Amino acid sequence: MTQTKYKTNSAAELGLANVGSTVTLAGWVDRRRDLGGMTFLDLRDHSGLIQIMVADSAMAKDVRSEYVLQVTGKVAARPEGQVNEHLATGAIEVDAEKITVLSTAAVLPFQVSSVLENEGDNKLPGEDVRLRYRYLDLRRPSMQARLKLRSDIMRAARQSLYSMDFEEIETPTLIKSTPEGARDFVVPSRLQPGSWYALPQSPQLLKQLLMVSGVERYFQFARCYRDEDFRADRQPEFTQLDMEMSYVGQEDVIAMGEKLIHDVWASQGYEVELPIKRIDYKDAMAWYGSDKPDLRFDNKLVDLTEYFKDTPFRVFQASYVGAVRYEGGASLSRREFDAWQEWAKQRGAKGLAYVTFKEDGTIAGSIAKHISDAEREGLMEATGSKLGDAVFFAAGEAEDAQTLLGMVRREIAKRQGLLDPKKFAFCWVVNFPLFRRADDPNDDHVNVGHTNWTSVHHPFTMPSESSLDTFDTDPEHAMSDAYDIVCNGLEMGGGSVRIHRDDIQQRVLKVLGISQEEADEKFGFLLEAFKYGAPPHAGMAIGWDRASAILSGVDSIYDVIAFPKTHSGSDPLTGAPAPISEQQINESGVKEAVAALEADKQ
Amino acid sequence: MTQTKYKTNSAAELGLANVGSTVTLAGWVDRRRDLGGMTFLDLRDHSGLIQIMVADSAMAKDVRSEYVLQVTGKVAARPEGQVNEHLATGAIEVDAEKITVLSTAAVLPFQVSSVLENEGDNKLPGEDVRLRYRYLDLRRPSMQARLKLRSDIMRAARQSLYSMDFEEIETPTLIKSTPEGARDFVVPSRLQPGSWYALPQSPQLLKQLLMVSGVERYFQFARCYRDEDFRADRQPEFTQLDMEMSYVGQEDVIAMGEKLIHDVWASQGYEVELPIKRIDYKDAMAWYGSDKPDLRFDNKLVDLTEYFKDTPFRVFQASYVGAVRYEGGASLSRREFDAWQEWAKQRGAKGLAYVTFKEDGTIAGSIAKHISDAEREGLMEATGSKLGDAVFFAAGEAEDAQTLLGMVRREIAKRQGLLDPKKFAFCWVVNFPLFRRADDPNDDHVNVGHTNWTSVHHPFTMPSESSLDTFDTDPEHAMSDAYDIVCNGLEMGGGSVRIHRDDIQQRVLKVLGISQEEADEKFGFLLEAFKYGAPPHAGMAIGWDRASAILSGVDSIYDVIAFPKTHSGSDPLTGAPAPISEQQINESGVKEAVAALEADKQ
Repeated sequence: MTQTKYKTNSAAELGLANVGSTVTLAGWVDRRRDLGGMTFLDLRDHSGLIQIMVADSAMAKDVRSEYVLQVTGKVAARPEGQVNEHLATGAIEVDAEKITVLSTAAVLPFQVSSVLENEGDNKLPGEDVRLRYRYLDLRRPSMQARLKLRSDIMRAARQSLYSMDFEEIETPTLIKSTPEGARDFVVPSRLQPGSWYALPQSPQLLKQLLMVSGVERYFQFARCYRDEDFRADRQPEFTQLDMEMSYVGQEDVIAMGEKLIHDVWASQGYEVELPIKRIDYKDAMAWYGSDKPDLRFDNKLVDLTEYFKDTPFRVFQASYVGAVRYEGGASLSRREFDAWQEWAKQRGAKGLAYVTFKEDGTIAGSIAKHISDAEREGLMEATGSKLGDAVFFAAGEAEDAQTLLGMVRREIAKRQGLLDPKKFAFCWVVNFPLFRRADDPNDDHVNVGHTNWTSVHHPFTMPSESSLDTFDTDPEHAMSDAYDIVCNGLEMGGGSVRIHRDDIQQRVLKVLGISQEEADEKFGFLLEAFKYGAPPHAGMAIGWDRASAILSGVDSIYDVIAFPKTHSGSDPLTGAPAPISEQQINESGVKEAVAALEADKQ
Repeated sequence: MTQTKYKTNSAAELGLANVGSTVTLAGWVDRRRDLGGMTFLDLRDHSGLIQIMVADSAMAKDVRSEYVLQVTGKVAARPEGQVNEHLATGAIEVDAEKITVLSTAAVLPFQVSSVLENEGDNKLPGEDVRLRYRYLDLRRPSMQARLKLRSDIMRAARQSLYSMDFEEIETPTLIKSTPEGARDFVVPSRLQPGSWYALPQSPQLLKQLLMVSGVERYFQFARCYRDEDFRADRQPEFTQLDMEMSYVGQEDVIAMGEKLIHDVWASQGYEVELPIKRIDYKDAMAWYGSDKPDLRFDNKLVDLTEYFKDTPFRVFQASYVGAVRYEGGASLSRREFDAWQEWAKQRGAKGLAYVTFKEDGTIAGSIAKHISDAEREGLMEATGSKLGDAVFFAAGEAEDAQTLLGMVRREIAKRQGLLDPKKFAFCWVVNFPLFRRADDPNDDHVNVGHTNWTSVHHPFTMPSESSLDTFDTDPEHAMSDAYDIVCNGLEMGGGSVRIHRDDIQQRVLKVLGISQEEADEKFGFLLEAFKYGAPPHAGMAIGWDRASAILSGVDSIYDVIAFPKTHSGSDPLTGAPAPISEQQINESGVKEAVAALEADKQ
């Protein structure tokens, strides 16, 4: 279906087989070159580039970069020696017989030429300018390729899920505000002034209701919303591939998720080896200092707590002492080690202790002189190091110290060029605790409960069978049937077995300090639904922006979203958000909501 | 992938071939019957029903309707004479060896049993109760079948679009408020208090930007939002299959749309004959009194304006007089004709003039005595009637009178049983005017312009080539390149060629009275994008709730939406919309917006 009103072919369809045919093409002028009375135009359409030869430059006299042209002409083989090996259509050109300007173009704020991009010569402006003129930024073939990849992997994912008997079901996005952790975007109701909808942080409760409704395998590419202070890797709206199954346990969801990931990666030519490795949460922390370990490289953290248990060094008289090896790090200069200190301080650490094992057998570094001779003696062996390596240390509360070492581990790998974007190292992180301390300083979520405990995942996560009797009497050691899927050090998704029994749900809410009244008000509908026969169910979700970025080999999800928002939640292209009219405010119902609030106070 | 933690098979997989095997099933108790110490349970899972035979009732003593059970037992052939022909698994039963209650169920507010539904015996409560317990309502097999159909046709539509080289691209839903006709839902911005996002009424401008970005074939199942006073057939949020193509004209979009519709209907076993018939907008009004004619039956309106041009009857001395035939209508009683008057009055008419052609050759009816002998003489022939028929008349302004007759035409067909939900009569309505009078009483939209003219479709619709020079000097006769796809009297979708040239867009905005300043503020980003080289483009959208309802053979889109909202925009299940907390209001930024409004007034 390539032939349309404006063209007979797309550029990439043409080759030597078409020589002699008359074709009509349409596209943008990627580049113009004039040469001895003749003009050469690189015409760019969605399929690629093709050279247009204009024998008489006068025919193209007004034509400039990014004009939209319709060109009719004869396909010709390029003269000997002028074949362009780098271009799919490089063996041919089209000798223009007629050129129609479909649309003119003002001078662009930045270059989008394919040719220049291929040559690495597109000088991109800052992000704000790219987003302000996103329609130009997207014309670059690399951006088009990412949009195409994202479309292709959605197709592959759906195909995979259909093959496993999943149904795609849309759930509403104007819902009731429910406590899922982050802040809701809220939408005032005009018909019921003073009342509000919320945009969903995920379809969590709705997909659980679908299970209670008799759907056994549900999926949806769901738009989700979180009104957080946006970081580089977050968007106020994002897409997740959301899945839920009934009559299943953790093993069933993991098997499903593995087939899905296998099929999605296979669609892009990558073979994911199954089964995917699993790592316990506590091992992930101990070995990699992260609950989303990057397994493209090894270099595990070393636990030296026992090793330093009698140390004279005050800093190491801590509940945890650990280290990470920097292969060949002994050759770093003093200035480079100072820069590492800075790097660590920017990440909230006080500094970063280190030693170097010099080729001459001596030990140097910031803490070398603080530890005992015996400690120096066995240190190389204890840390698995060799002459010429360096070792970074952290000591203190285990989770904090491990987290710091985990960041160091990944930074070392980065500097060593080990973060290959075309290599994909997956793992499941399993055996998470059910609860964590609510005063966790890493918590940027709204605390949904009123005790010292908050859910590691969410309040609907099933305690693991071994914790079923004791999770409320001993929350600290309660484990959950939750699992995360991690790729290359990024959390790509996760899920859990859900609570389907009213009695267990009530006990979990009690640990969180959520009263019956509050529970009823916020998600009483789910608790009520469980009273009418709920099947056991479990599910997971994959962050689709993140998965697309990983497969595209880009760091930023900006590059796989057609129209992303800046860190302040703005769209520099459309100017959203923006003031609205007085009439819109009057009609929205917010005045009534504000007035009701004032009245409540009096 | 049927075997999971809780079951080895789904019910519908089992048949006589499995006799003797031990299986484990899980599902709801659809119905329980006790018979001489034995218990028979109909177990219902997503695939269907199966009979469980419990030889010792004691094993199932606590089991009631809608309990969720796990049952292990041996598949057995049913005894001679007990085979149930109506059930896929009717030749077998499972002799229970172990029954585990996975979840109990309270007494249901209404019956959801498959068996009862199949026997037409499910007594459904009112809509509010169905929505309040939607998870129970959805357990009914007919609802499950509709969710499945909707999923299946999304799959078929995507497959069709992929085969035509379309890419699926997601566009943002937190956008800037733009003037598309209806009222926007607005979302306050916390990070920029006083500013707002709007939820999109459609991705119209964004998909046009994608064309300017170099995407040539875009589609998306887009969630759209309109804050209107909801009618039976409207939801505050709805889904449309949104498509846009560049370098195409109307014929290309129609050809694409026809293949799409063909493929979607084919997925459900229906053959749609292509090409689909086309009807001019003015013919649709003249022949069917509607811009969405129901072509499952013929019975065109008859234009009698000329026939009655010298009439003595004051009511018919009008700019338009038309009629519609009611085959066999002469046999209606006086009371029945009175009821027709009431019917017409409820639809805003003053009444409904009629005559009957009696079998004895005489003419009776409400206006028989008002018209001349000559008019009575030829009336049967002029209206294409026969003895025994009746004819309804309407006179006045053509559009109003035709619209009334169009409703009469469909109501007659309904009473004659001609509205077969399994018959699908499609047509394209084409050649729409570009503008209509802004004071149109049928207009429930916010008037986007400030003149007597408003867009029939939207301000981005391309004038047809014949109107390109004159559309702004003679708006009344300006035609547009717009097209609607209609099925069974319902507008299923539509689209248009878009304006891709800044100069034409400016002239259209001028007719609508939208100033440069206002245009820049509201969609200046699109006008600006056109300055950097925009390809000609066109597209369409299909209302997916509507399409799903048509194919499911149901009248209400409620039946094809998992969790719909009531006419007042409420969800009786979750209680949305609802008040939010003081903290949420304080954080939302609405106070600042209201305060800014007050400050502006002072």
